[in-house]
Amino acid sequence: MSTADTISSPEALAALPLRENLRGLSPYGAPQLDVPIALNTNENTHPVPDEVVQAISASVTEAAGSLNRYPDREFTELRQRLAEYLGHGLSETQLWAANGSNEILQQLLQAFGGPGRTVMGFPPTYSMYPLLAAGTDTAYLAGQRGEDFSLTAESAAAQVAEHRPNLVLLCSPNNPTGTALGLDVVEAVYQATEAHQGMVIVDEAYAEFALDGTRSALSLLPGRPRLVVTRTMSKAFALAGARLGYLAAAPEVTDALRLVRLPYHLSAVSQATANAALQHYDVLLETVEDIKAQRDRIVDGLRGLGLSPAVSDSNFVFFGGLEDAHATWQGLLDRGVLVRDVGIAHHLRVTAGTEAETTAFLEAMVDVLGR
Amino acid sequence: MSTADTISSPEALAALPLRENLRGLSPYGAPQLDVPIALNTNENTHPVPDEVVQAISASVTEAAGSLNRYPDREFTELRQRLAEYLGHGLSETQLWAANGSNEILQQLLQAFGGPGRTVMGFPPTYSMYPLLAAGTDTAYLAGQRGEDFSLTAESAAAQVAEHRPNLVLLCSPNNPTGTALGLDVVEAVYQATEAHQGMVIVDEAYAEFALDGTRSALSLLPGRPRLVVTRTMSKAFALAGARLGYLAAAPEVTDALRLVRLPYHLSAVSQATANAALQHYDVLLETVEDIKAQRDRIVDGLRGLGLSPAVSDSNFVFFGGLEDAHATWQGLLDRGVLVRDVGIAHHLRVTAGTEAETTAFLEAMVDVLGR
Repeated sequence: MSTADTISSPEALAALPLRENLRGLSPYGAPQLDVPIALNTNENTHPVPDEVVQAISASVTEAAGSLNRYPDREFTELRQRLAEYLGHGLSETQLWAANGSNEILQQLLQAFGGPGRTVMGFPPTYSMYPLLAAGTDTAYLAGQRGEDFSLTAESAAAQVAEHRPNLVLLCSPNNPTGTALGLDVVEAVYQATEAHQGMVIVDEAYAEFALDGTRSALSLLPGRPRLVVTRTMSKAFALAGARLGYLAAAPEVTDALRLVRLPYHLSAVSQATANAALQHYDVLLETVEDIKAQRDRIVDGLRGLGLSPAVSDSNFVFFGGLEDAHATWQGLLDRGVLVRDVGIAHHLRVTAGTEAETTAFLEAMVDVLGR
Repeated sequence: MSTADTISSPEALAALPLRENLRGLSPYGAPQLDVPIALNTNENTHPVPDEVVQAISASVTEAAGSLNRYPDREFTELRQRLAEYLGHGLSETQLWAANGSNEILQQLLQAFGGPGRTVMGFPPTYSMYPLLAAGTDTAYLAGQRGEDFSLTAESAAAQVAEHRPNLVLLCSPNNPTGTALGLDVVEAVYQATEAHQGMVIVDEAYAEFALDGTRSALSLLPGRPRLVVTRTMSKAFALAGARLGYLAAAPEVTDALRLVRLPYHLSAVSQATANAALQHYDVLLETVEDIKAQRDRIVDGLRGLGLSPAVSDSNFVFFGGLEDAHATWQGLLDRGVLVRDVGIAHHLRVTAGTEAETTAFLEAMVDVLGR
């Protein structure tokens, strides 16, 4: 891993005719540090199973012979496989994919946001939202959560009705706090956008890690043409390196994205990789059960240390109760464990890894806190 | 290949809160028709050599085992290999890559264009330029060419000095006309942007097919921090399906793109594919010599039919002198040969394919024209 993606020559950059709103910024991205135990980017730390590696290899090898041709611009097979995987009676006309869910969100903002339009998120939430808004010149409205970072249907709907954003971003489970939204929140927000015809995007990047009984917003799609549910193969599918995000929505939403997507945006190699992985999703999802068990271990362990972990429907745990979050972060790093300081006082976020990584994290926490 | 990327339900789409400037548009892209001989998208019709297929397969298989991790956000190895391939004393700090040169151009427009800014192109030229401008809310200024589609240093510089665009797009060799610009044009345009500090982008997607003696704008980079040369692996490298575009420029230009790129925009699979291909570029470039020979055959053959092919530095030939270009296009299609109607009266564009494809095209032309 490289750590080189910083600005090498700020003076030379300042001399270029850069857009004014980019001046002085730093590139987005968590530090890519070489540490024994990296639990900072919510990756699936379980290696890709051999069976899936072999399937990807065979699929890409087959595709490689015709890489001289442009890929299927409509990635039809991939949309079919994604629809089959998601279920909920979805057809391939309702599916769309791109290079990571960041590109999915960027395309949604290009189609429905842009200059003179607004998008509302509810921080603390996925830190890319305001950056994607800036990158598409969509004004970002920061909504309010409760003191415990919760978001009720009543509060969310009232804020949306007041500000009338062109798009609403609901992250569920929310990153970095980890808790899923009740579907009552999604329903209320959708209803609140009825008057001004806003789009509602539910970002379910971590949906496969949900606690029993947590329902997906996919079940709300019928009859809601302005509702979009985004997903990714980066987390449960252990394919962060393959950059495959996708969404489910009414067919006309995918039509809208056809107007803004770059032609042939999804390479034949990406399509071959994702298609192979989807043929083995049962194997890939077996690791999800283990990760959920480790996540629950982390919650229990941190409670045992007198800390306050949030309810987690994801593959990470957000926890408060630290006197000095940055000192704890550094103490963990000194012990070879990298977690994420998300910039919220007294809190840190840790990815649920393998059993051994979880044990190492919990032991390091005991050591750092001296308890 | 699919032909499904049309709008399936215009009424439903019209009911969505789409941005106003997208209403009524159709998705961009050449028809993906199933025909025996497809010479319409300037692909390299030579299959990827076995040696390269094997190398890609091995490289992706190695990468597949760690796809659970995010890719190297800085694609350091790839930048090194691209610098080595281009030569001209370039270092990896001057290289940047993305999912196709369309994404490269989009990132340049995001960094240096945007609302309130302008980009100038010289139509007829690559038809994605105005669409990329619209997608980034950059106003597109259409410059003028001579009647024979040529662009002189004097004319280009005068137009740039008059309109002071924030970016200038010089396509060389130009698509669809096929002829490269003299470096005097690039030098004059760069000088004309000095007063208002505009960026100058030379799109050299087809540079490897240049006639002997045609020089690359790469040689002009030293001392010109606002000059950018874009390239692609889609054409000479026979990797259109892999979607790998790149650029060479001053290091601060790549710094600027770090501010607008989506994090981890280039997948580990894309990096592995491109790295493998670059280790075998000598084999891949052997097909370039054959394609140039076929291109020259097409020019000679069309001249023999009394038509007017343009000088071509690319893997395609633009030719005029047709009474009814669309009728000729249809006549060729009826004979199983798909070429590109670029919407210029009396003209068509054809890709130089294999020897057999070229023979089939020339024979079909004789047949269609009844000569």
